[in-house]
Amino acid sequence: MKNITATSAKAKNTATLLITCPDKKGIVAAIADFLYQHNANILHADQHQDAENNLFLMRVEWDLEGFSFNPAHFSQHFAEVSNRFNMEWQLKLSQKPLRVAIMVSQYDHCLADLLHRHKNGELMCDIPLIISNHHDTEALAKFYGVDFHYIAVTKDNKVEAEAQQFSLFAKYEIDLIVLARYMQILSPDFVARYPKQIINIHHSFLPAFIGAKPYHRAFERGVKLIGATSHYVSEVLDEGPIIEQGIDRISHRDQVEDLIQKGRDLERVVLSKAVRWHIESRILLYANKTVIFD
Amino acid sequence: MKNITATSAKAKNTATLLITCPDKKGIVAAIADFLYQHNANILHADQHQDAENNLFLMRVEWDLEGFSFNPAHFSQHFAEVSNRFNMEWQLKLSQKPLRVAIMVSQYDHCLADLLHRHKNGELMCDIPLIISNHHDTEALAKFYGVDFHYIAVTKDNKVEAEAQQFSLFAKYEIDLIVLARYMQILSPDFVARYPKQIINIHHSFLPAFIGAKPYHRAFERGVKLIGATSHYVSEVLDEGPIIEQGIDRISHRDQVEDLIQKGRDLERVVLSKAVRWHIESRILLYANKTVIFD
Amino acid sequence: MKNITATSAKAKNTATLLITCPDKKGIVAAIADFLYQHNANILHADQHQDAENNLFLMRVEWDLEGFSFNPAHFSQHFAEVSNRFNMEWQLKLSQKPLRVAIMVSQYDHCLADLLHRHKNGELMCDIPLIISNHHDTEALAKFYGVDFHYIAVTKDNKVEAEAQQFSLFAKYEIDLIVLARYMQILSPDFVARYPKQIINIHHSFLPAFIGAKPYHRAFERGVKLIGATSHYVSEVLDEGPIIEQGIDRISHRDQVEDLIQKGRDLERVVLSKAVRWHIESRILLYANKTVIFD
Amino acid sequence: MKNITATSAKAKNTATLLITCPDKKGIVAAIADFLYQHNANILHADQHQDAENNLFLMRVEWDLEGFSFNPAHFSQHFAEVSNRFNMEWQLKLSQKPLRVAIMVSQYDHCLADLLHRHKNGELMCDIPLIISNHHDTEALAKFYGVDFHYIAVTKDNKVEAEAQQFSLFAKYEIDLIVLARYMQILSPDFVARYPKQIINIHHSFLPAFIGAKPYHRAFERGVKLIGATSHYVSEVLDEGPIIEQGIDRISHRDQVEDLIQKGRDLERVVLSKAVRWHIESRILLYANKTVIFD
Repeated sequence: MKNITATSAKAKNTATLLITCPDKKGIVAAIADFLYQHNANILHADQHQDAENNLFLMRVEWDLEGFSFNPAHFSQHFAEVSNRFNMEWQLKLSQKPLRVAIMVSQYDHCLADLLHRHKNGELMCDIPLIISNHHDTEALAKFYGVDFHYIAVTKDNKVEAEAQQFSLFAKYEIDLIVLARYMQILSPDFVARYPKQIINIHHSFLPAFIGAKPYHRAFERGVKLIGATSHYVSEVLDEGPIIEQGIDRISHRDQVEDLIQKGRDLERVVLSKAVRWHIESRILLYANKTVIFD
Repeated sequence: MKNITATSAKAKNTATLLITCPDKKGIVAAIADFLYQHNANILHADQHQDAENNLFLMRVEWDLEGFSFNPAHFSQHFAEVSNRFNMEWQLKLSQKPLRVAIMVSQYDHCLADLLHRHKNGELMCDIPLIISNHHDTEALAKFYGVDFHYIAVTKDNKVEAEAQQFSLFAKYEIDLIVLARYMQILSPDFVARYPKQIINIHHSFLPAFIGAKPYHRAFERGVKLIGATSHYVSEVLDEGPIIEQGIDRISHRDQVEDLIQKGRDLERVVLSKAVRWHIESRILLYANKTVIFD
Repeated sequence: MKNITATSAKAKNTATLLITCPDKKGIVAAIADFLYQHNANILHADQHQDAENNLFLMRVEWDLEGFSFNPAHFSQHFAEVSNRFNMEWQLKLSQKPLRVAIMVSQYDHCLADLLHRHKNGELMCDIPLIISNHHDTEALAKFYGVDFHYIAVTKDNKVEAEAQQFSLFAKYEIDLIVLARYMQILSPDFVARYPKQIINIHHSFLPAFIGAKPYHRAFERGVKLIGATSHYVSEVLDEGPIIEQGIDRISHRDQVEDLIQKGRDLERVVLSKAVRWHIESRILLYANKTVIFD
Repeated sequence: MKNITATSAKAKNTATLLITCPDKKGIVAAIADFLYQHNANILHADQHQDAENNLFLMRVEWDLEGFSFNPAHFSQHFAEVSNRFNMEWQLKLSQKPLRVAIMVSQYDHCLADLLHRHKNGELMCDIPLIISNHHDTEALAKFYGVDFHYIAVTKDNKVEAEAQQFSLFAKYEIDLIVLARYMQILSPDFVARYPKQIINIHHSFLPAFIGAKPYHRAFERGVKLIGATSHYVSEVLDEGPIIEQGIDRISHRDQVEDLIQKGRDLERVVLSKAVRWHIESRILLYANKTVIFD
């Protein structure tokens, strides 16, 4: 398959800085001055202020060509500014792509979509690992050249199964876990180990139809629009920070099967956007909400 | 103001028949034959079958020009077919427009919208009555030539206030009550008196954010889309059959005030569609759901 | 891969009748009576009247279980009704799925999408043949078990190349040709041979940006929404009857590459809907327009 | 009518700076430093870089409470920064609202919408003047307390009519002219006098259906979506920079009248957004395109 953006992607050598701190006069001046002093060529900058929580949030991406120091030493150079404003920050280098694991059960539409987008250059990450509690997607994984691990999950073996999963995440040095219609509830321990590192797709317009069988319940309630929601997984089921939502129109002519079919198109788009925004460092989290710098 | 469709509207002389009955072979043949025998010129016909509930639902509209009998005697002519298939039916004549009352509190955007659409010929009904528990919309009512009645509602006078309302509905021969952001909860007695005759606009994507202050709760939850829902009022708050829903996209940049503002545009469109479909006999109800023949 | 709807699909044994004729009283009565007399169990019926062109259009689907004659003899049984009303009609049996060929150049997103939907049971047709003027999609075709034929197309060999294509269509008994981002203009001879049997996806909101490089031109014009359009191919480029259109919102932050990326999601959905509606006999054509019975 | 946001609006005392200049390192640092030195409390900042045209564009809004100098003297204080980077800039003070004239023919839906939004506090501008070539909207203007001037326009009196219009714009000190379905083509002289100061609503998804009767042509072409476009008026008809676009879905059941009715809802929303963004200094223009800082 032709990798459309591979050339430009490989050529890209940028740093992306995400910052959260209490809002205060002079923050932008301090950051902009720091970057200017070190000869950063800013490509994109975006910021947000939350008055209610008195928070300042920023994303800035610059070309590393001509930048005055090795970004590996960013921490020490940035310490003075960072300390002055009490910043939480993270730096992401385009040449160190995130490593993503995908967990899936038997429905393969989100998985097939993510793998195809990745191959076509839409997702600038590595996808070295697929874990499933079914064998259905093994051929697909093989076609795209991704390691596939089958781990059965039952009521009785959950602890062991998750232990196996953790060990695979460690072995493959995974940064992000994508639940691409993985029909198992993760243990609190699992969730706690990977904070802000697990993205799920829920097949409803949250907070409507939390929990199981949302399309069936949407059908029963007689809604006129169905939705899908991608979100970070937190300790409470389907209550984590929402990243993206999409909807489609339905009518009385649509049966549950039609809702499921229409829903698949929503799930694909809504999940792939969340993954792309995460790996491109476009998401900041606060107060159980997301800021998306798109 | 120019009434764009007045001429064609006045010229229109049609009958619209809505039918619900158990599904059975031969229903369409029987209805089509009945209409053909009486020389009906069918303009639109639409039907729906619900396999799960074994129901047949139909809407058919025909030109009364050349129809072989006075539609006032429809009941006796149609009795044989109707009895054979155990039909529930209603007949609506375009020359007998429904009479609509609008109830409103201080937010006037839905009211202003409905009155403007009515004046412009989009809503083929009469709107003789506006009832409000505030004086804010009195000037608007006067501008559009609609009788305005102020009825204060407090915790203590609810029974008397509703009695006054019932008496106005009777006096004005009201067929449909539209709650155009009327911020009072109707008593069970009120709701029971006007079954399938009260349409409300709820400012969320139901069933998310049932109850009060939905925009505030949507803001807190961090959703990426907000919605509005028009529905028939039933005994349980915000649980009646949904007629129409709309959504709009929001981002982290939107404050509660922005949600409220964007929501107003949704509410206007979503409520006006529900009113139009109702007065044009496009809605059939079953199993707490609506079939919309649009 | 799990074929979600395979069981129900195989069990399905229905006939779908599409009718176009001059509008006249008694048509529905005649058709409904015909079906009732022959013990048809109607599952869906939908009709449309076009007053301007005095046309009646109908789609009716019934269960063949219990139907009183072999649908292979439909023509002779239906002749009296058909002649009386001067009908054009076509009958489609669910157990004789259409045979579809897909033509594609190097962009594989629509192809991958159609093959995946087909495998998952969303598209009730056979897909025995893929033709491409590039080798890029050969592995994908092989993965899904579809015959792949490479036919180079140059300025000089167009006639020979199309002759090869025609011969493949004949050999594989193709009913429908889907241009899934096939970047070659078909000759008038090609188009004339397969009337109403070629579906194309154009990557703009037609009639805006007819012709080449629509995303680049959309970017230059500064539009705020981009679109995609699926349509039947007719003799004039991008002027055939439109089947479906979709749009997505863009902003000044989107570069041409972003438009192309967002466009891919539109193209997938808009093309797959057109293919599905065609193979389910949901489309009627008149006056260079489509009626979609969905 | 209750003016929902009046209190907060009156309290608001901010300055908004719009900047366009060639892109160069250090711009943000210089602006941020300038604002910090003068004790500006930044409320919102947004920027955009256009690589192709090597342009930097920025919008920044700050609270004037505590700002170190009178914004009337902004030009001299900002001169050094502005000259260094070769900036074009404009400063807008919230306490000096723009003065808007609305021109309208007989269709009043956009006018009614703008006046209602203004009254409810959605549009922070003054609307002192309505000009029409029909008398239809006079009562509406009066209801909302806006001066109404009737100026007939014929083939023969166009120059005189426009002269009258210019003199009214001068008298009322108009900053922005909104064509709210004004069905007359402005002369080149008119357009040249008010560059980037005239906003029009076109009832199609431009660039499709440029010119007259777009809904009729959309109907004939058989499109599945209709649109509306708000744009600045430039010398070439319907070719000015696009500000906002909206679409709605239609089907074969929709007649031209239905397209017109659905279109009215689009036009209202799309025009009012353009007006709001203009008066809130959210729009920057370059290369016949708009950047919207929303």
